[in-house]
Amino acid sequence: MPDIDFFTLTVSCPDQVGIVARVSDFIASNGGWIIEASHYADPDLRRFFMRHQIVAHSLPFDVQVFREQFHEIAQKFEMDWQISDSRIRKRVVIMVSNLGHCLYDLLGRWRTGELNIDIPCVISNHDTFRSFVEWHDIPFHHVPVDPKQKHIAFQKVADLFDTTQGDVLVLARYMQVLNTEMCELYPGQIINIHHSFLPGFVGAKPYHQAYDKGVKLIGATCHYVTSELDQGPIIEQDVIRIDHSYGPPELVRSGRDVEKSVLARGLQYHLEDRVLLNGSKTVVFR
Amino acid sequence: MPDIDFFTLTVSCPDQVGIVARVSDFIASNGGWIIEASHYADPDLRRFFMRHQIVAHSLPFDVQVFREQFHEIAQKFEMDWQISDSRIRKRVVIMVSNLGHCLYDLLGRWRTGELNIDIPCVISNHDTFRSFVEWHDIPFHHVPVDPKQKHIAFQKVADLFDTTQGDVLVLARYMQVLNTEMCELYPGQIINIHHSFLPGFVGAKPYHQAYDKGVKLIGATCHYVTSELDQGPIIEQDVIRIDHSYGPPELVRSGRDVEKSVLARGLQYHLEDRVLLNGSKTVVFR
Amino acid sequence: MPDIDFFTLTVSCPDQVGIVARVSDFIASNGGWIIEASHYADPDLRRFFMRHQIVAHSLPFDVQVFREQFHEIAQKFEMDWQISDSRIRKRVVIMVSNLGHCLYDLLGRWRTGELNIDIPCVISNHDTFRSFVEWHDIPFHHVPVDPKQKHIAFQKVADLFDTTQGDVLVLARYMQVLNTEMCELYPGQIINIHHSFLPGFVGAKPYHQAYDKGVKLIGATCHYVTSELDQGPIIEQDVIRIDHSYGPPELVRSGRDVEKSVLARGLQYHLEDRVLLNGSKTVVFR
Amino acid sequence: MPDIDFFTLTVSCPDQVGIVARVSDFIASNGGWIIEASHYADPDLRRFFMRHQIVAHSLPFDVQVFREQFHEIAQKFEMDWQISDSRIRKRVVIMVSNLGHCLYDLLGRWRTGELNIDIPCVISNHDTFRSFVEWHDIPFHHVPVDPKQKHIAFQKVADLFDTTQGDVLVLARYMQVLNTEMCELYPGQIINIHHSFLPGFVGAKPYHQAYDKGVKLIGATCHYVTSELDQGPIIEQDVIRIDHSYGPPELVRSGRDVEKSVLARGLQYHLEDRVLLNGSKTVVFR
Repeated sequence: MPDIDFFTLTVSCPDQVGIVARVSDFIASNGGWIIEASHYADPDLRRFFMRHQIVAHSLPFDVQVFREQFHEIAQKFEMDWQISDSRIRKRVVIMVSNLGHCLYDLLGRWRTGELNIDIPCVISNHDTFRSFVEWHDIPFHHVPVDPKQKHIAFQKVADLFDTTQGDVLVLARYMQVLNTEMCELYPGQIINIHHSFLPGFVGAKPYHQAYDKGVKLIGATCHYVTSELDQGPIIEQDVIRIDHSYGPPELVRSGRDVEKSVLARGLQYHLEDRVLLNGSKTVVFR
Repeated sequence: MPDIDFFTLTVSCPDQVGIVARVSDFIASNGGWIIEASHYADPDLRRFFMRHQIVAHSLPFDVQVFREQFHEIAQKFEMDWQISDSRIRKRVVIMVSNLGHCLYDLLGRWRTGELNIDIPCVISNHDTFRSFVEWHDIPFHHVPVDPKQKHIAFQKVADLFDTTQGDVLVLARYMQVLNTEMCELYPGQIINIHHSFLPGFVGAKPYHQAYDKGVKLIGATCHYVTSELDQGPIIEQDVIRIDHSYGPPELVRSGRDVEKSVLARGLQYHLEDRVLLNGSKTVVFR
Repeated sequence: MPDIDFFTLTVSCPDQVGIVARVSDFIASNGGWIIEASHYADPDLRRFFMRHQIVAHSLPFDVQVFREQFHEIAQKFEMDWQISDSRIRKRVVIMVSNLGHCLYDLLGRWRTGELNIDIPCVISNHDTFRSFVEWHDIPFHHVPVDPKQKHIAFQKVADLFDTTQGDVLVLARYMQVLNTEMCELYPGQIINIHHSFLPGFVGAKPYHQAYDKGVKLIGATCHYVTSELDQGPIIEQDVIRIDHSYGPPELVRSGRDVEKSVLARGLQYHLEDRVLLNGSKTVVFR
Repeated sequence: MPDIDFFTLTVSCPDQVGIVARVSDFIASNGGWIIEASHYADPDLRRFFMRHQIVAHSLPFDVQVFREQFHEIAQKFEMDWQISDSRIRKRVVIMVSNLGHCLYDLLGRWRTGELNIDIPCVISNHDTFRSFVEWHDIPFHHVPVDPKQKHIAFQKVADLFDTTQGDVLVLARYMQVLNTEMCELYPGQIINIHHSFLPGFVGAKPYHQAYDKGVKLIGATCHYVTSELDQGPIIEQDVIRIDHSYGPPELVRSGRDVEKSVLARGLQYHLEDRVLLNGSKTVVFR
């Protein structure tokens, strides 16, 4: 409901009786109007997950005051939690190498107003897309990666992300493997699109692996980046049908469509605070 | 979580502040452990929908006592509501004509324990499947339909449904159009599978209509039956890809797969109390 | 196989014995190496459809000479036929109004080399995308449509299409209904993307129709434009899953993804000469 | 087109110019009416694949005579080839353990005439489904597998397959791993349904593996059995969407639907001679 402003409260905590009651009592006692809510209890980990969408103008305070007043409840239930205001756009820094289909797709969604975000800058290890990005009045930073001194490049990226106050770092077919430092610096903030249906075909050239295997579907996976390559928590996946007549070039081309839509959907879920981390997995309240 | 018994509470009522708080306070104050919950507020109709799954043994009483104690809250908020106990199997009466694929599918799911239901009887306007049904130790009733006196047949069906204490009446490719009386007798209790992607191709021979149109996908629709033919609230839909080489016979054959799975999914949602009526539409908490 | 150049021969003609033999004998006797071939006989219309992909360098002549030499066979079998050379890029004229997602998608595919075409110009009834299109070094023509004198605008479009030697006219969410003259001028050359799963929801605001109906899937349809609104031969269709929580704005946003991919696939099939007209339907050799 | 009888000719051979011409000349010179044909040339292996559907009554001879007369051409081009007559039903032997959903599905398709086959017998390492199978007037053989002497059981299976003149052996969730001898005895004749989207999750308990990984889709794979476990040529695959709320039991239940439909589709392709082996992969002319 883009024509209504709302707060989104997401919570995960050890499961116990009374969480929902306590939280919804807090919201109700402040006159909060809940338009969407989801709950899930992981029976194995005994952990509880919750997301509430509350109409902003139904509450007497802003997110800052909400944070202060909710603090006590959060502590009592040992909550990992956050609250966001739909009127404050998230800042998404995009990284890309020299395959532009995801970049085109994201900038297209941004320019047409579909993605309600700010893009403080685009970072690339190539200069290929400078003019295209700059045409959109978005700063473009060329940060080459010296194989022998990767950490220098990634330090630059981290600095750019911090100084531009990025909330999310999107690897839109960025071909370099981030180092462990970088991954651990921004847990749950770096989103990657992998061009295979993980965990099938991890690592390099997944389309060629798929071709050799003769699979009948190929896919893409949107996941959070962790220090373990291609092993981060999965946000979204999808596949498309192929057949014997597809050689690697056709697979690469067809795969782009599913890469674009899976990345866009996964990012959208993240931006709407629908994705909660649950160990090495995610809870996605769609 | 079939290994846990639970109560499922479903509620719809005029939207206002405090519903969730009041309900979850009631559940929590009774020690109720919520393992799944979904809420939705229809912004147009200003109506609120809610579903809670509560671990049965976490509550000090059974559904009957729950009903008594919850009654006051329900009245206060003018709720349409119900609570079910996963240990009490719903009773599903199946109707079929002479196409057996959905019947085979449903009995298969029932026999393999996938469908946790009782099937008090199968009713058909043909005698075709008597032996197959009876082999499953399910009573079979042949109720022919006299075109000039349909109401007599449907009265028999209604009697059978009532005397066998049916909860749901499933039209598993039952080829007769129920009369208005019958439809209005069991609102939200009669589930039909229509062999097209409604609202496309209403009425007769949808596969032939699809063939004439040259569509590239065909589908099926699971919906509640109302007195308006093929216009009842939609529960579930799906499609499969076809191409120019499919003649009507291939369409009919291919369509069976999607008919079977869509009916099975729609029925499952209904049985798990995931489907709430919202005027001419449904809210499905999947 | 983008790394091989080939001729594509497409044929449709009254069905009879010996067509394949005669054609493949012609190809073989000239040393032609067939890498892909598809045949289909419509049992109702008794019409035969055929597509051959032949490695270009395996033949001793170019398409022009092929046309001359094949002419006699074509006449004998009363063939509608054409042959294309993958080295000669088709010229695609794009029309758009003020929704840019399909335009972005097509230019993105073109710029990344995914779409191997020439885009002589983009035509719009709004000036919105001039700068974006011109940044791509593609001529942009603003042709406003006067409701009272539509034919004038469409005459201008026809002139632009002719003078730029367009092969295909793509309506990438062009919001004006072309007049009959325009449609009949370029049969099988104008491709439209309709934002519904036709024949469901013809005409205006299909997403609002879908919302009112409470369908569980929405779709898009790529079809050739004829003088009958939304009734032209269907090239490609697809759907995506939605649920009760999607209001019209979410439907519109979600629908864009399927619009983009369905248009791109349909156009690709057309560009690869995989689509043959069969009365009001199509044969698509995928 | 089930109302037309036809011959289906399938060929694979080293690629060279003139194959199509020679074969179609043979068919045409005998008055053969081709209603469907597909060709594919593998650019890597330089191997050619071809399938023709010819109206039976358009030819002056039966398959036996066809074989004799075609023999010379087949030799000349070193063809692996076969021709089948749609009027001669293939004989499908089904193996199952104690999960009945695929068995129910196959017998349902057979009984409703959807699968135009003969089922000479069903073989199981459990006695669970004897009565169900025998109710269908199909012989049921209980062949227990002694872990220490598996070869004895598989020898019995082979004998049953041979004596009942089986054409295809379908492992419809048969839980024993066939030994190498058995696999090599019937190359391209044993079809298995694996309950994962191979090559992801090979081996045991794929649904539990999927649960641990937190994937958002689960799938099934229909493939020919080879001595390498779960590595045989893939015939068909599909997936369905799941989410965080699915525990292993829900995954198992949901997976059954895709297992059933993927096995049924894969088997249908095989029965219609649409599947040609291409090394460790398949060419499927759908």
